[in-house]
Amino acid sequence: MPQTSQRGDAMPESPIRKLVPLADKAKARGIKVYHLNIGQPDLKTPQIAIDAIRNIDRTVLEYSPSDGIKSLRTKLANYYHRFNIDVSEENIIITTGGSEAVNFAFMNCLDPGDEIIVPEPAYANYTAFAIAAGAVIKPIVSSIEDGFSLPAIEKFEELISPRTKGILICNPNNPTGYLYTREEMNNIRDLVKKYDLYLFSDEVYREFCYTEVPYISAFHLEGIDENIVLFDSVSKRYSECGLRIGALVTKNKAVLQNVMKFCQARLSPPLIGQIAAEASIDTPESYMLEMYNEYIERRKCLIDGLNHIPGIYSPIPMGAFYTVARLPVDDADKFCSWLLSDFDYHGETIMMAPASGFYTIPGLGKNEVRIAYVLNKKELKTSMAILQKALEVYPGRTIK
Amino acid sequence: MPQTSQRGDAMPESPIRKLVPLADKAKARGIKVYHLNIGQPDLKTPQIAIDAIRNIDRTVLEYSPSDGIKSLRTKLANYYHRFNIDVSEENIIITTGGSEAVNFAFMNCLDPGDEIIVPEPAYANYTAFAIAAGAVIKPIVSSIEDGFSLPAIEKFEELISPRTKGILICNPNNPTGYLYTREEMNNIRDLVKKYDLYLFSDEVYREFCYTEVPYISAFHLEGIDENIVLFDSVSKRYSECGLRIGALVTKNKAVLQNVMKFCQARLSPPLIGQIAAEASIDTPESYMLEMYNEYIERRKCLIDGLNHIPGIYSPIPMGAFYTVARLPVDDADKFCSWLLSDFDYHGETIMMAPASGFYTIPGLGKNEVRIAYVLNKKELKTSMAILQKALEVYPGRTIK
Repeated sequence: MPQTSQRGDAMPESPIRKLVPLADKAKARGIKVYHLNIGQPDLKTPQIAIDAIRNIDRTVLEYSPSDGIKSLRTKLANYYHRFNIDVSEENIIITTGGSEAVNFAFMNCLDPGDEIIVPEPAYANYTAFAIAAGAVIKPIVSSIEDGFSLPAIEKFEELISPRTKGILICNPNNPTGYLYTREEMNNIRDLVKKYDLYLFSDEVYREFCYTEVPYISAFHLEGIDENIVLFDSVSKRYSECGLRIGALVTKNKAVLQNVMKFCQARLSPPLIGQIAAEASIDTPESYMLEMYNEYIERRKCLIDGLNHIPGIYSPIPMGAFYTVARLPVDDADKFCSWLLSDFDYHGETIMMAPASGFYTIPGLGKNEVRIAYVLNKKELKTSMAILQKALEVYPGRTIK
Repeated sequence: MPQTSQRGDAMPESPIRKLVPLADKAKARGIKVYHLNIGQPDLKTPQIAIDAIRNIDRTVLEYSPSDGIKSLRTKLANYYHRFNIDVSEENIIITTGGSEAVNFAFMNCLDPGDEIIVPEPAYANYTAFAIAAGAVIKPIVSSIEDGFSLPAIEKFEELISPRTKGILICNPNNPTGYLYTREEMNNIRDLVKKYDLYLFSDEVYREFCYTEVPYISAFHLEGIDENIVLFDSVSKRYSECGLRIGALVTKNKAVLQNVMKFCQARLSPPLIGQIAAEASIDTPESYMLEMYNEYIERRKCLIDGLNHIPGIYSPIPMGAFYTVARLPVDDADKFCSWLLSDFDYHGETIMMAPASGFYTIPGLGKNEVRIAYVLNKKELKTSMAILQKALEVYPGRTIK
């Protein structure tokens, strides 16, 4: 049997994935599992998107342009203008989900051995796409004690080597929910400028900012226009993760040109998804506001609930729909497994994402979990009650 | 400005892509362009697929499983059984188009520097995905004189080095329309077995075989079950290229396991496409037969038309919906450009794919073009008339 590739073997399996069979077994035993582990919102997709699909009037479902349907790119540019992101449709390439934008950016900006600096905890799949490109992630740890704020810029600078090609940030942040401040963003900009780095900026949670201060897009930073590669997706903001429509946005012509060659190789992004995504951009303000208010309430419900449980601490996330909380347990991986395999409270349990999967440095996040508030308030309250009861009897509890 | 990656720079631009602006300009001058250059069938997508989309009853368009919706995988396994391909749903991973299947296979089977042997002319995007994986394509030239039959197996064996990891075939073939014989396939099998290679088998044109002898799937070959990685797609057979639904099929558990990690990194294949693809598998036999008969007639119309023009030669393709023809011209790249920029016949012209883009060896295919018979017979006849008139006045004509 021929050998698999080293890169395939090196690709890590997420700790969440290991929990899936346990969750399936729990369900098979008749136990209800509340999924706090995934970034799949429970909210309805806007009707305007569903209608666009139901009213499709094409007879041949043919390839679309490799960089996406032009009218979608134009509408997306107008959407960005609402956020003072000054880009045109020529700066936008439609990708198969935000994931493909990350993949194409890494493949076209990073050579094997090149390094990118990424604040941790971070979205686990960045590592996967870095491995695919043969690139190396140099993590810089943000800490729950500091509310996951950006580490001092000197810490970034210490990591810079001749192989450093970029910095990657996710703002608002998955998994921490942290929202970068103007000062933090300016510090990043100065470093990007000084060393002429790429700034990869994942901004898919743009609509989820729970503060008076608006989010700072990478494109709001001055003097680094050609260094920025922005990742976007319609998945989260319109609750349409299944469509697989994202975008890579950059003013760097050389990157655009090379990314286009990758786009052409995979022919085109999904047609029906693009049609629905284009319609979604006209989602009424009322839908967006209702969603926003819902997350505001869920956030309060979850964070208050968490901090109310003895031994748990969660900072208040200012964006996205996640928080990373510290639990009074020996090992969050074990605890999350135990919740599914050895525990239930009145026939119910919860599934959470162990934070270890969001760190590349082994041993970090050992007593932390990521919780997504993608369930309604009633379910969140029940989940917190289950978590409290579980911690009362979990054998590996650390704080008595 | 930071540097782009070497792999991005190395990615070739297809000669077809260079023609697109010329075609756009021709259209802007009011000239009608017949597209013989692309593999986008003009045939209607089966109604059953359109209906599945129009009747979608979901309220949340959520992620599907990373390896695809289980019912689709099960139905696809049953579909393969019709062709005596003995696989189960556990051997099938749904991909975003056949393109992603190629990409994932190369990323997981080939390390940088590894080699695969590919008969040329070949689908240009194999090269793109090989570059993405850092792998090297070792071409073995099939010739129009031999009707693009497989070169002698000794020629393959000569190319085998310690870095050889696999052989890639496309059967029925794009771009040549060649259909491999049992003997050729057995020779491939012996070599795969002898050197323990991967056999990457692109079988997306399975339904397009115009001979009494059925096509031989790689899975019909004995004793190499774990060496085979099959690529499939619903794009061509149901005229639904825009859905972006394909499959990677293998019985090799190590490959499946690693490919799944890549699948998880990109989260899921497109949801709506999967729903439509699943419905498509129930396309009535009458649709498939009508399509088949239509292509049989188009093939006759095109090949007779081509060979009727003085100086042109095309073998009779036994599968797919392409042929590679030899033209009496100095340089097919120039001729195809000239057709768009300097020629029209009663306000009409044709666009063809220069065959140079299907060879990795520079200089080959210089007087060959790929023609797709994805237009109706009337349009094909008109196209042949245009081609004949063009050759009469083209300054670079070689055979007077």
